[in-house]
Amino acid sequence: MKVAIVMGSKSDYPVVERAEKILAEFGIAYETRVISAHRTPKAAADFASSADAAGIEAIIAAAGKAAHLAGVIAAHTPLPVIGLPIKSSTLDGLDSLLSTVQMPKGVPVATVAIDGAENAALLAAQMLSLRYSGLKTALLAYKERMENEVLAADREFRGSDGLL
Amino acid sequence: MKVAIVMGSKSDYPVVERAEKILAEFGIAYETRVISAHRTPKAAADFASSADAAGIEAIIAAAGKAAHLAGVIAAHTPLPVIGLPIKSSTLDGLDSLLSTVQMPKGVPVATVAIDGAENAALLAAQMLSLRYSGLKTALLAYKERMENEVLAADREFRGSDGLL
Amino acid sequence: MKVAIVMGSKSDYPVVERAEKILAEFGIAYETRVISAHRTPKAAADFASSADAAGIEAIIAAAGKAAHLAGVIAAHTPLPVIGLPIKSSTLDGLDSLLSTVQMPKGVPVATVAIDGAENAALLAAQMLSLRYSGLKTALLAYKERMENEVLAADREFRGSDGLL
Amino acid sequence: MKVAIVMGSKSDYPVVERAEKILAEFGIAYETRVISAHRTPKAAADFASSADAAGIEAIIAAAGKAAHLAGVIAAHTPLPVIGLPIKSSTLDGLDSLLSTVQMPKGVPVATVAIDGAENAALLAAQMLSLRYSGLKTALLAYKERMENEVLAADREFRGSDGLL
Amino acid sequence: MKVAIVMGSKSDYPVVERAEKILAEFGIAYETRVISAHRTPKAAADFASSADAAGIEAIIAAAGKAAHLAGVIAAHTPLPVIGLPIKSSTLDGLDSLLSTVQMPKGVPVATVAIDGAENAALLAAQMLSLRYSGLKTALLAYKERMENEVLAADREFRGSDGLL
Amino acid sequence: MKVAIVMGSKSDYPVVERAEKILAEFGIAYETRVISAHRTPKAAADFASSADAAGIEAIIAAAGKAAHLAGVIAAHTPLPVIGLPIKSSTLDGLDSLLSTVQMPKGVPVATVAIDGAENAALLAAQMLSLRYSGLKTALLAYKERMENEVLAADREFRGSDGLL
Amino acid sequence: MKVAIVMGSKSDYPVVERAEKILAEFGIAYETRVISAHRTPKAAADFASSADAAGIEAIIAAAGKAAHLAGVIAAHTPLPVIGLPIKSSTLDGLDSLLSTVQMPKGVPVATVAIDGAENAALLAAQMLSLRYSGLKTALLAYKERMENEVLAADREFRGSDGLL
Amino acid sequence: MKVAIVMGSKSDYPVVERAEKILAEFGIAYETRVISAHRTPKAAADFASSADAAGIEAIIAAAGKAAHLAGVIAAHTPLPVIGLPIKSSTLDGLDSLLSTVQMPKGVPVATVAIDGAENAALLAAQMLSLRYSGLKTALLAYKERMENEVLAADREFRGSDGLL
Repeated sequence: MKVAIVMGSKSDYPVVERAEKILAEFGIAYETRVISAHRTPKAAADFASSADAAGIEAIIAAAGKAAHLAGVIAAHTPLPVIGLPIKSSTLDGLDSLLSTVQMPKGVPVATVAIDGAENAALLAAQMLSLRYSGLKTALLAYKERMENEVLAADREFRGSDGLL
Repeated sequence: MKVAIVMGSKSDYPVVERAEKILAEFGIAYETRVISAHRTPKAAADFASSADAAGIEAIIAAAGKAAHLAGVIAAHTPLPVIGLPIKSSTLDGLDSLLSTVQMPKGVPVATVAIDGAENAALLAAQMLSLRYSGLKTALLAYKERMENEVLAADREFRGSDGLL
Repeated sequence: MKVAIVMGSKSDYPVVERAEKILAEFGIAYETRVISAHRTPKAAADFASSADAAGIEAIIAAAGKAAHLAGVIAAHTPLPVIGLPIKSSTLDGLDSLLSTVQMPKGVPVATVAIDGAENAALLAAQMLSLRYSGLKTALLAYKERMENEVLAADREFRGSDGLL
Repeated sequence: MKVAIVMGSKSDYPVVERAEKILAEFGIAYETRVISAHRTPKAAADFASSADAAGIEAIIAAAGKAAHLAGVIAAHTPLPVIGLPIKSSTLDGLDSLLSTVQMPKGVPVATVAIDGAENAALLAAQMLSLRYSGLKTALLAYKERMENEVLAADREFRGSDGLL
Repeated sequence: MKVAIVMGSKSDYPVVERAEKILAEFGIAYETRVISAHRTPKAAADFASSADAAGIEAIIAAAGKAAHLAGVIAAHTPLPVIGLPIKSSTLDGLDSLLSTVQMPKGVPVATVAIDGAENAALLAAQMLSLRYSGLKTALLAYKERMENEVLAADREFRGSDGLL
Repeated sequence: MKVAIVMGSKSDYPVVERAEKILAEFGIAYETRVISAHRTPKAAADFASSADAAGIEAIIAAAGKAAHLAGVIAAHTPLPVIGLPIKSSTLDGLDSLLSTVQMPKGVPVATVAIDGAENAALLAAQMLSLRYSGLKTALLAYKERMENEVLAADREFRGSDGLL
Repeated sequence: MKVAIVMGSKSDYPVVERAEKILAEFGIAYETRVISAHRTPKAAADFASSADAAGIEAIIAAAGKAAHLAGVIAAHTPLPVIGLPIKSSTLDGLDSLLSTVQMPKGVPVATVAIDGAENAALLAAQMLSLRYSGLKTALLAYKERMENEVLAADREFRGSDGLL
Repeated sequence: MKVAIVMGSKSDYPVVERAEKILAEFGIAYETRVISAHRTPKAAADFASSADAAGIEAIIAAAGKAAHLAGVIAAHTPLPVIGLPIKSSTLDGLDSLLSTVQMPKGVPVATVAIDGAENAALLAAQMLSLRYSGLKTALLAYKERMENEVLAADREFRGSDGLL
């Protein structure tokens, strides 16, 4: 099981790192790359064109502002590409979101929330679970853990109800 | 290979139909459902909870306005859920897009462009191609056809260059 | 008199707490719950389905980002549901607002301002005042107190008018 | 059971009419008024100040552009006020929505979707059901009818699944 | 010469204060009031209805969020009303701006920039200059001072040109 | 009494014409000009610089897209300038509104609603009424006519109340 | 003098055609290409990488939705790239605009207004005029023609002033 | 080689300074001016009208809020004008961007990203490279340096891949 995480700039790493943690938690191997659609276009094309043959099964592409990275990568590969819009210094990430999600017909990018790195990794795990059935079990366990955390928080609050 | 397409209302069908055509083109079986997160919440939960066992491998969920359908389905299944925001009568689809894509940590929705039905289907095909290698070949062929269409259009225009 | 306050995450509590204070001020019993539409969908459905029978008369649902909580709860109950959009880390709460207020035909959510917790509680009190006439008196008194506070602030400023 | 519907202009009636139909369906008496916060401010204040004594139990206020009507009425009455933002000729109703929903602390307006007239009426019915238990039964029946309509639409589509 | 400045809340004063300074600079008497369209609607109506008779010649109304204050005041007076949208804690002041400027036909509000207190005061001075010709001279002098300040800043920078 | 109406393009006239009608109704002389901040910058500067001496007392400036006209005129005159943002073919007039209203400190533009031509004219009348007391009487009569129209519409609707 | 116009899709041609007319008017040779950043990424890279050597001096890139075309071309060439955002079926062109203009540091795109094809061509002419001084004369003549057209429209309107 | 940088206010300098650095790096002479479209309109017209004769070859105009500076300068000169929208205290720079980029037909402004000072300078360098072939070499070297920086960052990250 192998996922590539590509970010447009080193400065995206504090967000991207949260995706790495989720992948590691699911035992999914990953490689993290710094590739810019605009500053290293050839590296982007080379990476994307050879990703399938290199055994990569899904690609997470994180970028901000006019975030072309996910779309550019998706142009060169039949692999599913997950777009992770990064909030940049202005416009609260709306530019990154629209640049990532509004892809024209023919080249989809599976977009998650602005700065939603964990969900990018979970989506990759869901995709890979189509092939690796163990991942489905792990995803169900993850869902259960989340559920239990919320239920625990709920119990904590229910002890303090007002005027009852 | 089996994908479910769920739409929140019959009125979404003119958009959704375009996803069906792509799936059929790729030989992917699909079932199209009308399920509303708000008007048939039990059906939504039942459908989503049993989708995996029913052999469904990916779910496309199309909805407009406060588009909760994709998120609600994703809450009940480990399968990847593709969110297709439908442009409603006001706000140009921005409400549908944000309601679909801005999912909180833990429950991703793979969101495509507003009314981007073809891309929802292509994304499903990409996901399934992780398991069915024939699909990857078909996706590469699709990419090539698209490329050739654009190249043909390009040739047509190049014949009419100005002042050269 | 009993109101339920449901929040999608413990992190919403600093806002939600302001609703509790208003309810307590009006002598309305409340229970505060942590229930996530996405991470505890069954708890959400169970809670909402049984709220009426449990003597709850109105529900305040607070959530951020793709804020489906209020809509999901409203899907399962005939009780009035008050949606409280929480400002999340990006987009200034616009995503929460649109996800909460733009409900499709058939399932209303009574939406208040982004982070408008006090107003969510006051709206609950107004709803309950249809049944408990004492609350109407209390609401009129609250309005009068607000009016007096503003009038007092006005007097304070009028003493410092310029060049008169 | 009595609800007032107030609209800022006769031109809002094609939307408002849909609220009337729902109220009539639930056997809730209503009076429809044309009152403008800006062109008939005294009528607005008089209406709102005397609504409670006149036996009105909830008020639906429909207005577009800088939609002050709901807020102005809420300022003068302890009754719950439901804000119905009307889409005007520019900005797709965003101005109406924000002007209605973003009420400051102390004076809530229960806002529904842009042009969401049916939901405004249903919300009024939910509020009144706190006092008139027959309405709760009617609301549950309405929910069931909606559910059945969607289930019927679902059955219709399931017959035409692709490649199954 | 007399202008009223009305703010919806004491918390608007740090912005409003900048308008006071400009008015004082132009020798225009002002009174600053705290009047809320929603919490003191009668005071708002009384103030606006009697402003003309009280010798007030223009009114600056400052408010945030669903900023109805300027519109409500304009509804009750033939005097020109200047709307000053205040940036509130969410949505960056867009709600205040749209609620203030998008007034329906018949009741204008002369809107300035979000938090543009100085311009609200200058606009009042321009309006009053139609009657008090001394103000026109003062406004021309103000324009000249501004021009000189910018010209001085320009000279300062020109000394440090690069590579010339 | 004399007002200038300036529009950036002949194509703005269908909106601007509505301002002319209101001015004529109030007996205010006007001249309508086509002056572009970008295509006739010298004419714009000449017009604005000489407007005061030419007896013009207020200027209405109508423009769309990056609507600089009002601001450019305001830069050259101490007269009050009323900005009328025109809805252009894209962005629903938001660009025109922000370009007109968000003026920097020192040079106000009194902005009315997008396409709000009648209000631009009424605002001019309010400004001129500071000098011409007859206009104030006319404005009060206008307000009364508006009020009576709404009251008449109200009476018409009240006859058809439901279930009362 | 040679400019390339690249559009992402044949459907962009009705807008792009207006750029061709301006270029022809200035005697600038152009070639119009259909190249998609997503469907023909190799053609895009090849075109952009060889444009300089092919004697092209500026590139106009027109695209809609997640409009990556201009950025992708700019990544491969030192030539100035003019981005022409095309209004697509949703979001009024805001997605195209932000995807085109919000380029990260290092790779500029000279962006013009949404659907602003004439300006894209004029900007190309301005750029080329740095090298071809005849173009500067032509640009000044164009400016003069525009000015005269507006002045003529102004004269036409001035004859019909109201009440003067 | 000579570029003018014009900013609407001294407070824009921390952003503008980054453009100066890039110009210096490319050996392009520049002069930095403080000129306000609104506070020094004559200086703006004088500067722009004489820029061409003064040997300036491109102009960078930086301004915030209702950012008219670039458009006003472009109105007076055949030189290419680069618009640099500055993020002001509200609306995250959206007002500056739209005021700068949405120029009407006939007067283009080559707009870069909000606060994108480096790109404004690089775009100027690209324009000048049409005339000064040495600049093209420098631009290609700059592109290569950027590429190498990203490739270096990429190597750094690849050493730490997860689970491989």
